[in-house]
Amino acid sequence: MNFCSQCGHKVSLEIPEGDDRKRHVCGSCETIHYQNPNIIAGCLPIHEGKVLLCKRAIEPRHGFWTLPAGFMENGETTEQGALRESWEEARANIDVHGLYTMFNLPQINQVYLFYRGTLSDLNFGAGTESLEVALFSEDEIPWRELAFPVIKKTLKHYFADRVSGEYPIRNEDLIYPKFTHTPDEPQKS
Amino acid sequence: MNFCSQCGHKVSLEIPEGDDRKRHVCGSCETIHYQNPNIIAGCLPIHEGKVLLCKRAIEPRHGFWTLPAGFMENGETTEQGALRESWEEARANIDVHGLYTMFNLPQINQVYLFYRGTLSDLNFGAGTESLEVALFSEDEIPWRELAFPVIKKTLKHYFADRVSGEYPIRNEDLIYPKFTHTPDEPQKS
Repeated sequence: MNFCSQCGHKVSLEIPEGDDRKRHVCGSCETIHYQNPNIIAGCLPIHEGKVLLCKRAIEPRHGFWTLPAGFMENGETTEQGALRESWEEARANIDVHGLYTMFNLPQINQVYLFYRGTLSDLNFGAGTESLEVALFSEDEIPWRELAFPVIKKTLKHYFADRVSGEYPIRNEDLIYPKFTHTPDEPQKS
Repeated sequence: MNFCSQCGHKVSLEIPEGDDRKRHVCGSCETIHYQNPNIIAGCLPIHEGKVLLCKRAIEPRHGFWTLPAGFMENGETTEQGALRESWEEARANIDVHGLYTMFNLPQINQVYLFYRGTLSDLNFGAGTESLEVALFSEDEIPWRELAFPVIKKTLKHYFADRVSGEYPIRNEDLIYPKFTHTPDEPQKS
């Protein structure tokens, strides 16, 4: 951030009065420009024990498999965001059962929320951000071709929890001492 | 938003290629400036059945009672944000038991997350954003002087759930057809 989005003047990085961390502050209109984490909302869509995955048509992780998910938009709820992304990426209509996993990724200022649900029909298909969309049984999951650790963790929780049929909300912090953009597993420092 | 924070050129509100909603787009460097919801993280601090509340020293709702909570910052987890706010507003040290309530407020692009916990000591006190900090039993809660509906709802859930001693994560959407900044209750359209 170099310029004030309100008045166009240059901003500088300084600690505003009464604050304790550096913010981008406008030298002219004095607007303080806060930057805060983003929510990524998605679904774990199930049909007769199989999971719907999307093969990514975009970077990062082009060609790898993911659950439908994306940045929550203003004016919607987290569940609405999860359903919208499921439609956009997988043309999937989903009956939501509830929030299932939540992951904090503080290095990249993201909080992931996945909702568990069942497909309401089988009219799914690849949206513009997907190369392919398909249903996978537990044995068929392409574990080595999953796009992100949050996907692998959500799937692992699901296959473990469905043995009992209880799906408590799973809440994890994914902290990578030496973070790379697409780590396969947490790295040791 | 009037100017590009990257290059200082004027922005215009338009639908970028491949998108389906209006964004602020720079006419020069073509940066797309996304705006997304914010997370507000806080705690429900308990000591021997009493709840710690803070009397707000700032607007909105100056003089009304709240649970310690505030905007999650980059680089922290939701729980770290909740603990930081509890320290800043109430000088409270808390042993967290887990995520407890989650509220979507789509009209103001906010998602609230409250963590349940017990005070680890009684050295609490008013931070700079609080006039006063005090413990309240259920009978003493100033129900008509609570700052926000999310506070009232979190307290109601807590007093109801502690009868059984089970505290499932409570997840609600607060949708106000005619929204005012500090509604006491959802308004009917």
